[in-house]
Amino acid sequence: MSENIWDGVIPQDEVDAYEAAGFGRASGVGSKPALLIIDVQYRTVGTEPKPFWESIKEFPTSCGEVGWQAVAQIEKLVAQFREKGWPIIYPYVAPKENFDTGRLAAKVPALMGVAAKGYEFVPPVAPQPGDILLPKRHPSAFFGTPLVSYLVERGIDTLVVTGCTTSGCVRGSVVDGFAYNYRVVVPHDAVYDRSLTSHKVNLFDMNAKYADVMSTDEAVSALSKVDAAS
Amino acid sequence: MSENIWDGVIPQDEVDAYEAAGFGRASGVGSKPALLIIDVQYRTVGTEPKPFWESIKEFPTSCGEVGWQAVAQIEKLVAQFREKGWPIIYPYVAPKENFDTGRLAAKVPALMGVAAKGYEFVPPVAPQPGDILLPKRHPSAFFGTPLVSYLVERGIDTLVVTGCTTSGCVRGSVVDGFAYNYRVVVPHDAVYDRSLTSHKVNLFDMNAKYADVMSTDEAVSALSKVDAAS
Amino acid sequence: MSENIWDGVIPQDEVDAYEAAGFGRASGVGSKPALLIIDVQYRTVGTEPKPFWESIKEFPTSCGEVGWQAVAQIEKLVAQFREKGWPIIYPYVAPKENFDTGRLAAKVPALMGVAAKGYEFVPPVAPQPGDILLPKRHPSAFFGTPLVSYLVERGIDTLVVTGCTTSGCVRGSVVDGFAYNYRVVVPHDAVYDRSLTSHKVNLFDMNAKYADVMSTDEAVSALSKVDAAS
Amino acid sequence: MSENIWDGVIPQDEVDAYEAAGFGRASGVGSKPALLIIDVQYRTVGTEPKPFWESIKEFPTSCGEVGWQAVAQIEKLVAQFREKGWPIIYPYVAPKENFDTGRLAAKVPALMGVAAKGYEFVPPVAPQPGDILLPKRHPSAFFGTPLVSYLVERGIDTLVVTGCTTSGCVRGSVVDGFAYNYRVVVPHDAVYDRSLTSHKVNLFDMNAKYADVMSTDEAVSALSKVDAAS
Repeated sequence: MSENIWDGVIPQDEVDAYEAAGFGRASGVGSKPALLIIDVQYRTVGTEPKPFWESIKEFPTSCGEVGWQAVAQIEKLVAQFREKGWPIIYPYVAPKENFDTGRLAAKVPALMGVAAKGYEFVPPVAPQPGDILLPKRHPSAFFGTPLVSYLVERGIDTLVVTGCTTSGCVRGSVVDGFAYNYRVVVPHDAVYDRSLTSHKVNLFDMNAKYADVMSTDEAVSALSKVDAAS
Repeated sequence: MSENIWDGVIPQDEVDAYEAAGFGRASGVGSKPALLIIDVQYRTVGTEPKPFWESIKEFPTSCGEVGWQAVAQIEKLVAQFREKGWPIIYPYVAPKENFDTGRLAAKVPALMGVAAKGYEFVPPVAPQPGDILLPKRHPSAFFGTPLVSYLVERGIDTLVVTGCTTSGCVRGSVVDGFAYNYRVVVPHDAVYDRSLTSHKVNLFDMNAKYADVMSTDEAVSALSKVDAAS
Repeated sequence: MSENIWDGVIPQDEVDAYEAAGFGRASGVGSKPALLIIDVQYRTVGTEPKPFWESIKEFPTSCGEVGWQAVAQIEKLVAQFREKGWPIIYPYVAPKENFDTGRLAAKVPALMGVAAKGYEFVPPVAPQPGDILLPKRHPSAFFGTPLVSYLVERGIDTLVVTGCTTSGCVRGSVVDGFAYNYRVVVPHDAVYDRSLTSHKVNLFDMNAKYADVMSTDEAVSALSKVDAAS
Repeated sequence: MSENIWDGVIPQDEVDAYEAAGFGRASGVGSKPALLIIDVQYRTVGTEPKPFWESIKEFPTSCGEVGWQAVAQIEKLVAQFREKGWPIIYPYVAPKENFDTGRLAAKVPALMGVAAKGYEFVPPVAPQPGDILLPKRHPSAFFGTPLVSYLVERGIDTLVVTGCTTSGCVRGSVVDGFAYNYRVVVPHDAVYDRSLTSHKVNLFDMNAKYADVMSTDEAVSALSKVDAAS
């Protein structure tokens, strides 16, 4: 396990402790994958790539350059899923309404005032006709949405989860996807966060308990072995 | 913010990045609290306090001594909730049945073979008649359980979440509790994990986005101001 | 029980059978009500009151005149809730997208081709700023929506359910509201259906097991005793 | 439509009204069925077949002889599912705990005092090792249970719903199964209720909107064409 994204953040004795408890086995990929692209909107990356502290001047919710780097990886998955005809699903945050008060407004008030431009999808990985749009109001793509119904209708058994943030909506969706018994793949370079430490530790947590964490290239390779006809 | 549990793990510039994005405001305590004691069973702490590497010889799922230290903190909250007559809820893992296959068995096979003794509640904070027992099969106390129905019946608006693991069932429950619009308090010394780093980073994440993280003593103090009659 | 809406449809011996089993006790009204107005859009009543067989020429999903009669009753509740400042929630069907296939499209294909005008709210009881809009894709207002989160945030303990159809989205929402432990009131003249028999039997079922069924005037009277300050 | 179970209860013009609106198309059977046997415990049929008014002396919740007639039909499905190796799932009511207050206790207090014997499964269709036991506290087998996780793990696309009551837990489960996009089959002689009228009208409702209603023999025949290998 010498080349994991969380090396240097999680000490070796803690990695050993998880292994001793038997965590981290691979779930593998099934035969009916769907791609989730979560919250890849201008509000999370800015309208153009800029360093974090520059980017948040445009949108306080932006993660900056790391988001654009992830977008480049997500493009590979989008190309593969479009070619195979597999479902691509866009859980996204809709503009806030005046009745959207609640805990989110209390904990992170800045989220309530994002400009309309911020809600647009980032063009290289934006939805096309036939993709599934899934507005959501809470972190997990499953919470308060009909996502499971879309997955059941299509017989999905595997979720590839991309977008942002690693420690927020990605993780929330991964935990729920796992609980519903979907096999979950998280390409670590196709998810992003405003804290690199939190990003790495969340990937460690998800790999230990809920998902198979790998690079986008490894995910594309694993998915290329899925028989589209199955 | 000079004395947070995650100091030294999350670098200051990342803490600053979260603050710049406006994360981490306090939600506060409401008027109808409930206490969640998650998975405080022998299988997560051992039948007696021992160092981690000793404890996992008894149960591979044990977190060892840190669990017993948290139990001592949870006792304070149990005393307060019993005195006030506020609900105490025990989400817990029931012994596995032969039909409990699925993603959990695939990711963490060691969880499937825990001895019966491991499922007993830890005596100092064990349930008493009138407490709510909530068997669960997935990380979040809300997933696949009637927890919300119990909360609605009792008019609960605030959840105090304790037990283990910080990065697993505690976090999953906190994210869902937040999404349901409950005010969530996480006493950082009343939750525990087998990785100290993951414990700290998950507390950072939860404080930034989903919950008010404080010490048990601070939580007891804040709760003492709640008017039980309201 | 001599003046129930289901008299003449459910035979007396069956009413007796339910009573013998102890069904049908009143739940009562709590202290924090919310009003649900379900699917009161032109597509369910037509743009003007017409007999059923005329009305379905405009929208095959219309219930016709009975819908307009219910609208007149709902107006009374809307007036009361606006005066008291209690929440009014509009679960409604959004126009179908091309990814909305699934069981609904299979069972009731006519639902997929309703004209845009049909999705407009019926003016006398249409939403105003501050009301909660809740798009849904399935019968129950709770299914795949964040309705519970809105109710928790507002401390709601009682739901008054109106709209249509009695045997469809009203009943589905009532069963779920009951399961979440909300007290549920169904004003029988403020809900409507395209089958009078099914309307009556569903009211019988709901009254026996899930809700307090009464007239709108009785509901307004019961609600007038709620202390808005509580 | 001259031989439907609801003939004589739903007037012809109301049947016509539903047909005019385009309701009632068949969903069909998929390739991965699961059988739900809901609440077939002594408390719903009595320990031996007796007329309704005799049977409720043993358990006030009994439906009497109609329950035993349905059990004989369910046996055919159990035999088929066991032979094919398809999943059989038992959503059932567990004995009440002292914390199980709530709306159910308010609406139907008699349900709270059933003797232990009443919770035993009816022998001819009782669970065997490997079957899935699903304790529930609310009408729908999906509500507050991990049922969807079991279905996703097994790739299920079709539910055959049996047991009781037609107007209660059967209907609640059917509506949710439909909303999750499962194909749903309800064998009308394998479900039962204490009101024959409500039984028939609920079958009409379910056939119009949520499920394919047919006899058990027809269901067995339709299922015999499913390729077990798919």
